[in-house]
Amino acid sequence: MTSSALHPDRLFSSDSRQREIARELYGTVRTLPIISPHGHTDPNWFADNKPFPNASELLIKPDHYLLRMLYSKGVSLASLGLQPACGGPCEENPEQVWQTFADHYYLFRGTPTRLWMDHVLGEVFGIERQLDSQTGADIYAEINRQLATPAFLPRALLDRFNIEVIATTESPLDSLQAHGKLRDALGAGRVITAYRPDPVVDPDYEGFSRNIEQFEAISGEDCGSYAGYLRAHRERRLYFREMGATSTDHGHPSARCEDLTPAQCEKLYQGALRGELNAEQADQFRGQLLTEMALMSLDDGLVMQLHPGVYRNHNPALFADFGRDRGADVPLAGEFVRNLKPLLDRVGNHRDFTLILFTLDETTYARELAPLAGHYPALLLGPPWWFHDSPEGMLRYRQQVTETAGFYNTAGFNDDTRAFLSIPARHDVARRMDCRFLAQLVAEHRLEMNEAAELAQDLTCNLARRAYRL
Amino acid sequence: MTSSALHPDRLFSSDSRQREIARELYGTVRTLPIISPHGHTDPNWFADNKPFPNASELLIKPDHYLLRMLYSKGVSLASLGLQPACGGPCEENPEQVWQTFADHYYLFRGTPTRLWMDHVLGEVFGIERQLDSQTGADIYAEINRQLATPAFLPRALLDRFNIEVIATTESPLDSLQAHGKLRDALGAGRVITAYRPDPVVDPDYEGFSRNIEQFEAISGEDCGSYAGYLRAHRERRLYFREMGATSTDHGHPSARCEDLTPAQCEKLYQGALRGELNAEQADQFRGQLLTEMALMSLDDGLVMQLHPGVYRNHNPALFADFGRDRGADVPLAGEFVRNLKPLLDRVGNHRDFTLILFTLDETTYARELAPLAGHYPALLLGPPWWFHDSPEGMLRYRQQVTETAGFYNTAGFNDDTRAFLSIPARHDVARRMDCRFLAQLVAEHRLEMNEAAELAQDLTCNLARRAYRL
Amino acid sequence: MTSSALHPDRLFSSDSRQREIARELYGTVRTLPIISPHGHTDPNWFADNKPFPNASELLIKPDHYLLRMLYSKGVSLASLGLQPACGGPCEENPEQVWQTFADHYYLFRGTPTRLWMDHVLGEVFGIERQLDSQTGADIYAEINRQLATPAFLPRALLDRFNIEVIATTESPLDSLQAHGKLRDALGAGRVITAYRPDPVVDPDYEGFSRNIEQFEAISGEDCGSYAGYLRAHRERRLYFREMGATSTDHGHPSARCEDLTPAQCEKLYQGALRGELNAEQADQFRGQLLTEMALMSLDDGLVMQLHPGVYRNHNPALFADFGRDRGADVPLAGEFVRNLKPLLDRVGNHRDFTLILFTLDETTYARELAPLAGHYPALLLGPPWWFHDSPEGMLRYRQQVTETAGFYNTAGFNDDTRAFLSIPARHDVARRMDCRFLAQLVAEHRLEMNEAAELAQDLTCNLARRAYRL
Repeated sequence: MTSSALHPDRLFSSDSRQREIARELYGTVRTLPIISPHGHTDPNWFADNKPFPNASELLIKPDHYLLRMLYSKGVSLASLGLQPACGGPCEENPEQVWQTFADHYYLFRGTPTRLWMDHVLGEVFGIERQLDSQTGADIYAEINRQLATPAFLPRALLDRFNIEVIATTESPLDSLQAHGKLRDALGAGRVITAYRPDPVVDPDYEGFSRNIEQFEAISGEDCGSYAGYLRAHRERRLYFREMGATSTDHGHPSARCEDLTPAQCEKLYQGALRGELNAEQADQFRGQLLTEMALMSLDDGLVMQLHPGVYRNHNPALFADFGRDRGADVPLAGEFVRNLKPLLDRVGNHRDFTLILFTLDETTYARELAPLAGHYPALLLGPPWWFHDSPEGMLRYRQQVTETAGFYNTAGFNDDTRAFLSIPARHDVARRMDCRFLAQLVAEHRLEMNEAAELAQDLTCNLARRAYRL
Repeated sequence: MTSSALHPDRLFSSDSRQREIARELYGTVRTLPIISPHGHTDPNWFADNKPFPNASELLIKPDHYLLRMLYSKGVSLASLGLQPACGGPCEENPEQVWQTFADHYYLFRGTPTRLWMDHVLGEVFGIERQLDSQTGADIYAEINRQLATPAFLPRALLDRFNIEVIATTESPLDSLQAHGKLRDALGAGRVITAYRPDPVVDPDYEGFSRNIEQFEAISGEDCGSYAGYLRAHRERRLYFREMGATSTDHGHPSARCEDLTPAQCEKLYQGALRGELNAEQADQFRGQLLTEMALMSLDDGLVMQLHPGVYRNHNPALFADFGRDRGADVPLAGEFVRNLKPLLDRVGNHRDFTLILFTLDETTYARELAPLAGHYPALLLGPPWWFHDSPEGMLRYRQQVTETAGFYNTAGFNDDTRAFLSIPARHDVARRMDCRFLAQLVAEHRLEMNEAAELAQDLTCNLARRAYRL
Repeated sequence: MTSSALHPDRLFSSDSRQREIARELYGTVRTLPIISPHGHTDPNWFADNKPFPNASELLIKPDHYLLRMLYSKGVSLASLGLQPACGGPCEENPEQVWQTFADHYYLFRGTPTRLWMDHVLGEVFGIERQLDSQTGADIYAEINRQLATPAFLPRALLDRFNIEVIATTESPLDSLQAHGKLRDALGAGRVITAYRPDPVVDPDYEGFSRNIEQFEAISGEDCGSYAGYLRAHRERRLYFREMGATSTDHGHPSARCEDLTPAQCEKLYQGALRGELNAEQADQFRGQLLTEMALMSLDDGLVMQLHPGVYRNHNPALFADFGRDRGADVPLAGEFVRNLKPLLDRVGNHRDFTLILFTLDETTYARELAPLAGHYPALLLGPPWWFHDSPEGMLRYRQQVTETAGFYNTAGFNDDTRAFLSIPARHDVARRMDCRFLAQLVAEHRLEMNEAAELAQDLTCNLARRAYRL
């Protein structure tokens, strides 16, 4: 049986005119290389090139989309093989973990996880049976069998997936050793890093002042003053650039920016070092750092990414037992018009500075982000992010962004994932949905076919290459 | 002439593939029993089982959807038979009231009221002519003729509508006499109550301190202290449970919850009794009571429902003359992530506690509610509510909720109405729209047909039964 | 080659049933007269009736939709012929300006600007080639050739476009000389004015106190006191009404209204005259003036329009060089339920007062505006505005407004433009999208065909005529 997930027309409109056009457009982009300028895969996978251990370790335990849904329906994280900090029991047998997942796979109906997982099973492993309680054990065995073969080593998959370039995300405190190894092995520019300074720009981050000590050590700059602290950033950014980085990434609670006086900056910084900032001051400091990062980007050419608007670790009991990134992060209402102004007043009109904006609050697409990106030379819109990198989420993005910002103020697609095997699936969903959207414009005579074909190429590869200076 | 409202394919997509699939799915759920776990019908109708007086009294005067639209276009409520408190004249002739409605029926084009009313006329009364100025008088006479027959007695309609269970909503101050009578007449569990404590948990409610006196009398608990007041709640909840209740319902202005110390609670409570709380304190008290109700639900197993976010009685002149529920309530922007945290920190991880969330602010679907319900074991999403229990509202709900929360973190449909005769219409609209949504997923190869069929059953009956422990 | 923009079925759904119905409905409204009750064309064009200078001057330089998009992709405003205040160079050759636009025309793919411009080229100038780098020069020459002919004089176009009535917008400080001339030349009621008092009601407006001096002079009323100031408004409103005005228009930052005591009003007014109001006080004053304007409308019958929610001149560097209306205005989140209450408490129940509400925050459609307009007799919803007067924007408006407010609480379409030649294009897009929406309702059996046909007429002409008392 051919499952839906492998149907050649999946995700296209069922309207026959639109479907035909979408099919034609998709045919021209299906096999184009994958540009993955923003994500969270582990560079050591590619540096070490060792086989992935087993299906559960690879596909379930690191995927917070899976964990959140299973947990919401009463499946404990311990039963999925995660060790609670409290020291309680946890499922040690990865096959049993997989079986629990298979038993609950029906929960994912209608979700992107289902699309991605079916794609992984069907396209990556060639397994055409639907995952469920009955088929779980066989599928587990089959995946493990294949994972043990050379064709499933990380670098082999990099080739097989036709990944032209993939960016990981590292803290300034990271030595980038893996990236050094990778540059030697694969040449420059295939697996690159990105500068993600949260641990040293967020006074509320666990161990902030210890992080600053490390920052001093790794940068060789005296971080006792704000000026020295900024020099340390400049230093590390240059090193990241040498190791392939073309971008920085910032995960603040909001898009708030500041443009403070040097005296105010110094005062906040000293307070941060002493751990004495209140919530408002910590937020000010983060806001100031966004503007500083933008100014540094003007100098060193790194493209800036802002991913704001998440309430992290909303569930304290779960956080105590299982830590970050277990599916307990929740979006917040967003605001960009007033929040970004201090930064835009400084650098918004520069054509050689790029700030790529992401949001988890879709109400900002048409109201704030498209109007801002449709005016400021420095701004681009990133693709639909996280909870919204799904068929409906992608449609809403195009429908709400395009009329005001056009296509050329967007930054192409990026997968933003640590689930390496699902990268082709995610790009395939994006390509299909883009072709579907373009097909509707053509079918309704809002766009010519030759323009749609050009746009399909741009949305698939060219916009990402340009936006991220790849 | 067959009016649109009776067309067998109404509300399905006009895309032929999708329509065919929707038709097939709908065929499997069309005649399933109605589960109505949340609504506002009058239990005395069923307890007394007397004929409904006439078309205007039954179908117009209690329906705030009708009143609001007619009023907005200049039709006075007095001309619709409502007596103003100021003592001015009002239309006494119900036939004239009906004629006024008929004259303005075109105003409802494109609204769910039109769908429901056409269904009531066509399916319940077998009247196939479109309501308008010309047909109004005949239709009025025909409805009244039928209402006088035994087939239109409330209990007969309960059977004819195939209502397996229906919940009404009562205040803790209600003796539940009607429900006692009903249990004797119809057996337990057919017409059940729900615990709606607004008059005794909202310090701003008219006559709050008098209500607390009654609460003391009816519960037999000393409500002089906060502890005694909580005991009174526990007592009444148990009594409601005995009378069939499986749920509580809370209509707060926002989703704000609190988790205060006993001393703070006592102080607020005493202030509330004396009528001395300011707006902020009253809001705190309401927030604390949400958490208390959740904790009691852990003990007694009642499912908790939260319906927040309405500015009640926005029009003071209209309120002075005609009182509550005349169509002058307006939604407010909502927030759940921060507001619910105190409650979730206490009970969010309990698998045997259920909180069903409703919203009138659709922006919270994808941004807040689906992520929260897609993580916390205790949370489910209620169906689209009030202004949004309409075809477009239902589509937006599925499109914005499903990808993050899936189908199985939703609570099925409920009609939330006091318009008894429209209950089949409302469930029919929900079934058609769910089948339409599922049909699209199948037609676009996002879901298998056998899964869609299973989901259609679940969305129609099983999810509501499970969520409300019926 | 027939470009998409001229395809007879453009913007209709590609679903064959819906398309057929849309085509039929559109056929009945395509050639109906244009009612343009709100816009920003220059009355001197029609008063003087001189030829438009050239394509760039007419179609590019005044169009902030064009300027914003080109600027966002690095095209400087000086290169588009705008003279910077700093005195730097600017492109003097209009043909070169046009060529720059043609070179970047691909940026507008998927935007309404593209639809409108293609319509202007194709339908107004009969040019069927697509605009691009190659065709730019020829198209420029052809437009200029035609602009020089009598058929392209402003009044000739007014006839050719079948514009029954068009409103411009003037400040109370305007002498309305052009309108006087026009009344003599074209008769009353063809080109009318509207009362837009921003320069004399907004204490933050450039030169507010000087404006009040002029206001005193032109009205002949002593503006030293608040009472005199209000008399000056009454006076000017009457004069505007004599010159054809049927409406007022208010462009406040938010929908905030106030209902202050006379003493508070006097105090704020005196502070405003002295330039001593802080931000909050200035906002209060604007809010009070909205209520005053509503009360005056009760007397003089002028329909009131409120266009709130824009952060004007967000880009200070651009503002310094090129001034207002260059595409640097950005929408803000909106709120109507609490903000409008003081005004609605005074006049919301009056059937002979009309307030037409616009929004740039689409989240308020279903949540606030449709519920408010679906209740208050005084309220109507204006059409989708500015960033949202586009195919997707219009669809979202109907989908989110209709089920709660119906069609008859909306005010028909208005083009709100200063781009005179695009007026037919804009009305054509609105007619097509309305027919498309109605066609969907008919195809899904939510509406009868005869009702849809009646509605198509109403949406195209009757609602605007009624709402604006034309």
